[in-house]
Amino acid sequence: MSGAVVILSGGLDSTVCLAEAVAAHEPVIALSVDYGQRHRIELERAASIAARYGVEHIEQRLDLSAWGGSALTDASIDIPTATDAAEGPAVPITYVPGRNLIFLSLAVALAEARGCESVFIGVNALDYSGYPDCRPEFIESFRGTAALALRVAVEGAAVVITTPLLDLSKADIVRRGVGLGAPLELTWSCYRGGVTPCGNCDSCVLRAKGFAEANVADPAP
Amino acid sequence: MSGAVVILSGGLDSTVCLAEAVAAHEPVIALSVDYGQRHRIELERAASIAARYGVEHIEQRLDLSAWGGSALTDASIDIPTATDAAEGPAVPITYVPGRNLIFLSLAVALAEARGCESVFIGVNALDYSGYPDCRPEFIESFRGTAALALRVAVEGAAVVITTPLLDLSKADIVRRGVGLGAPLELTWSCYRGGVTPCGNCDSCVLRAKGFAEANVADPAP
Repeated sequence: MSGAVVILSGGLDSTVCLAEAVAAHEPVIALSVDYGQRHRIELERAASIAARYGVEHIEQRLDLSAWGGSALTDASIDIPTATDAAEGPAVPITYVPGRNLIFLSLAVALAEARGCESVFIGVNALDYSGYPDCRPEFIESFRGTAALALRVAVEGAAVVITTPLLDLSKADIVRRGVGLGAPLELTWSCYRGGVTPCGNCDSCVLRAKGFAEANVADPAP
Repeated sequence: MSGAVVILSGGLDSTVCLAEAVAAHEPVIALSVDYGQRHRIELERAASIAARYGVEHIEQRLDLSAWGGSALTDASIDIPTATDAAEGPAVPITYVPGRNLIFLSLAVALAEARGCESVFIGVNALDYSGYPDCRPEFIESFRGTAALALRVAVEGAAVVITTPLLDLSKADIVRRGVGLGAPLELTWSCYRGGVTPCGNCDSCVLRAKGFAEANVADPAP
């Protein structure tokens, strides 16, 4: 086994993560999840980014929008500005219940089914929105759980979960992406579903801060 | 919070589990996953069982059949007889990579989104097919991971994962179901996708053994 599954949202972080995986593994499978997110455009970007790298792209449909509970899947809940998010609850309303837990579960299952040795996820615990499932302690716990869940574990192997961006600042991620030649111009970060990024949601503000601190012009239109 | 999410396959174990949940919680939401299983009939049974209890039933589509790797989702792989399964690898070919990991992840996410305090799963580590994700150590590890993944954990609460059947024999499960008045006549166990149960796959054999040891006639047609 030497392949890798990469969880690809179509955003900056997961795209840099894909660039890391492509540099080290063959084959690479990009896994995107259509979970009913209002920012549908990120799915199109994910497809374009996977095509750019010539890797297999699996778009898994999983409609969490019927469940409610998040501004990212419920159009009746406003996306807060970064300022409002900072003043709001510790876990903002853009949190999607169980998202990374579900994504990682799907990714390790796909890795096992396809005989891939690794899963890459672009979580980042420094410049992030405060979601509980981006924290290092969650990732570490998931590693132990996945090791018990899978057949490969019974057979004495493991699916390795790799988080190349976990301790990087957003500026470091931008620099890493530029260094790897990642197609940052194709990435989409905005939580809102508009035609152009809003510039004031948490995700837009973190992205702008990253490019500014890296002293790199954002190549996305 | 006092509601519960029950993972309902439409089989014997998950139906007894639903009966347990209905006896203790209100509301109860039954969650079934259409993962491309060849025994489609279990999904119809799950719907009938949920209707019998008058609980909300969510059927989540999640096509794992495209991933391959399991006799339950790949019609080109034969379902082994119980005898063949016993003589085969420790984890039989009917194992679906990551299934309970994915189901539990979806269930805790749904519980959080809907404000339910519990998740019920009918795993059983005694009379079972040897799947790694039915073992008590997997469930225990998942509890810790879910506690780190969810917002409720950050807020000092938890989604409680309940496994009422974990240490029961199949005969005990039959007795429990009868005692609770569960509609065992609606349940479906056979791994094959036929019109009537095959009687010789691992799941049919375990079911027959359970009813026989409980000295109860199987009410399913």
